[in-house]
Amino acid sequence: MQQFNHNEHPHRRYNPLLDEWILVSPHRAKRPWQGQNEKIAEENRPEHDENCYLCSGNVRSNGVKNDNYTDCYVFENDFSALLRDEVDFENNSNNLFQLKPERGINKVICFSPKHNLTLPEMEVSDIEKVVKVWKEQYIELGSQDFINYVQIFENKGSVMGCSNPHPHGQIWAQSSLPTQIEKTQKNLRSYYDKNQSSLLKDYFEQELKLQERVVIENDHFVVLVPFWATWPYETMIVSKRHFGNIIAMTNDETKAFAEIIKELTIKYDNLFETSFPYSAGIHQSPTDRVSHPEWHFHMHFYPPLLRSATVKKFMVGYEMLAEAQRDISPEQSAKILRELPHQHYKTKIN
Amino acid sequence: MQQFNHNEHPHRRYNPLLDEWILVSPHRAKRPWQGQNEKIAEENRPEHDENCYLCSGNVRSNGVKNDNYTDCYVFENDFSALLRDEVDFENNSNNLFQLKPERGINKVICFSPKHNLTLPEMEVSDIEKVVKVWKEQYIELGSQDFINYVQIFENKGSVMGCSNPHPHGQIWAQSSLPTQIEKTQKNLRSYYDKNQSSLLKDYFEQELKLQERVVIENDHFVVLVPFWATWPYETMIVSKRHFGNIIAMTNDETKAFAEIIKELTIKYDNLFETSFPYSAGIHQSPTDRVSHPEWHFHMHFYPPLLRSATVKKFMVGYEMLAEAQRDISPEQSAKILRELPHQHYKTKIN
Ligand SMILES: O=P(O)(O)O[C@H]1O[C@H](CO)[C@@H](O)[C@H](O)[C@H]1O
Ligand SMILES: O=P(O)(O)O[C@H]1O[C@H](CO)[C@@H](O)[C@H](O)[C@H]1O
Repeated sequence: MQQFNHNEHPHRRYNPLLDEWILVSPHRAKRPWQGQNEKIAEENRPEHDENCYLCSGNVRSNGVKNDNYTDCYVFENDFSALLRDEVDFENNSNNLFQLKPERGINKVICFSPKHNLTLPEMEVSDIEKVVKVWKEQYIELGSQDFINYVQIFENKGSVMGCSNPHPHGQIWAQSSLPTQIEKTQKNLRSYYDKNQSSLLKDYFEQELKLQERVVIENDHFVVLVPFWATWPYETMIVSKRHFGNIIAMTNDETKAFAEIIKELTIKYDNLFETSFPYSAGIHQSPTDRVSHPEWHFHMHFYPPLLRSATVKKFMVGYEMLAEAQRDISPEQSAKILRELPHQHYKTKIN
Repeated sequence: MQQFNHNEHPHRRYNPLLDEWILVSPHRAKRPWQGQNEKIAEENRPEHDENCYLCSGNVRSNGVKNDNYTDCYVFENDFSALLRDEVDFENNSNNLFQLKPERGINKVICFSPKHNLTLPEMEVSDIEKVVKVWKEQYIELGSQDFINYVQIFENKGSVMGCSNPHPHGQIWAQSSLPTQIEKTQKNLRSYYDKNQSSLLKDYFEQELKLQERVVIENDHFVVLVPFWATWPYETMIVSKRHFGNIIAMTNDETKAFAEIIKELTIKYDNLFETSFPYSAGIHQSPTDRVSHPEWHFHMHFYPPLLRSATVKKFMVGYEMLAEAQRDISPEQSAKILRELPHQHYKTKIN
């Protein structure tokens, strides 16, 4: 009988944040690809695009004019998925037909007035401004009495449903704890109750010793490919200090967070020498006015690409119906990311 | 205060199969779409394609020649995600680093020798043959002692990661219960233990009374847009009789199942007058030699399209990090599907 090798043999791994297993089939990366290819992001965009509804001073489709902003710029989403208004609701739910109205606020954050930049190409000081706006928004939205959770995220690239290349992210703030947050909180909480310590702190400290899945580290943050990562080049930024949300971040930590976001996204761009698509977002404690010692600030990056700038991983039939599945081991991905240069490929001197 | 209206106001619905909530934002379908467009499936394919590795008598990339098959044809996947072999494994798992080897078998099923057909264009009698092969495979694979679960599914269309338009599906059979199956089973079981009846039977019987989300019905099956559907045109085929897996299906039920698959997929093709992409698969009892009175045979269809043949729903940032979200109410989708013609648009006489 062959000795088990996690870079060769099919196996399952456990995700303690979601209490779910995923299937790893590392040998499968060898199959030839005959499927769909994605379009490559258009390069050489202008610094200001007259037709972009996010550019400084331009008019949006609903007729509202953007400020002539020069830094990070926030406004309420013109096509919000959530609405502020309370509605009059008669609860006729039974067991199998449960429904409840949901209130919330959706915002858009332009990271920079420059249409042709993305996070990896921005100055660290400008990324710091974005982090500060995230903090302000978390405080402002979270302090409204009907808001109990604030989801900060970015969809980057058309393959991630992003309709505009102008560097921007979103915030969806709402009354209920969303499904993934509730699950994560439940697992963080039961670990905390049992061990009186943060699951993620205990986890990343072991990772720092093992050095198998760590991609980048600075004084205040670690980037790693989680042991249970689903997407081929999925990573997580974890704060070294155990704090629950962005309000607790010191100035030093804010700078270190901006730095590590830049470093990580440069590596991503360098991987396939393309503007690397992903959905990324912060997971942190709810704003529900309850103490949350179990929460540990972290940011997930879920990038779809698998083999090249144009071939993504499809999470489809088996994955939707049965279980998430990956075709390369987290250790292999971490090694590839770790060894990529720190300098953005576009600024390379030949 | 406005009266709540589920076709207008944001709300959340509960999925009792997965014990999860989803966000419904029906007003959001109004936003303009400026994002990515999908490629339209190539039409006018030949009945036999020399370059197709699934066509009858052709040689696959690993050098194996397909039989000169004339009906449904099954073979083992050349690039299996799961492998049969047992491996020698030393368990060093701890709490936060849990891993175990997984064994299994992957098969490919060509639904028809005709390269240019898809399920909605096949004869009912030929779809019946496919259902019979599913049954045979469930029995054959499930009887192997290291197989405890058999996932039968189809990825259709390049947007669903399908690399070949030849009509085909897959089967992944394995030792463990995959994540989604374990969750579903847990919820079916606790309902069954409490009520001594099938959750899905109690559910579809209420749906038949309400007639708001039912799309098609015949003597033995119902197609409905679940109250908690995630994808814009998601549907579920449920057997009217309570049985746990495909082995229990009578001849009449087999025929009725083939008929309703054809009717549903014709409606799907007619929706945007395109070969409608989806991932679909059967959920049924595991083959773990344990009694499963809680299971109720059903088939999920998860189609990605939202607005047209080229605009899909992106399940990205908010959806990946927080909660699944839909932009049209399940009732609106059901009505649209219900009112579509029964005849395939390609056979329409002008
Ligand atoms: O097996 P195929 O058709 O090569 O591959 C397709 O279906 C599989 C099962 O859902 C997925 O894991 C792959 O990402 C997808 O491209
Ligand atoms: O809000 P946008 O950028 O218009 O839309 C994008 O992100 C949203 C939040 O993840 C998704 O619901 C949409 O499907 C996606 O296209």
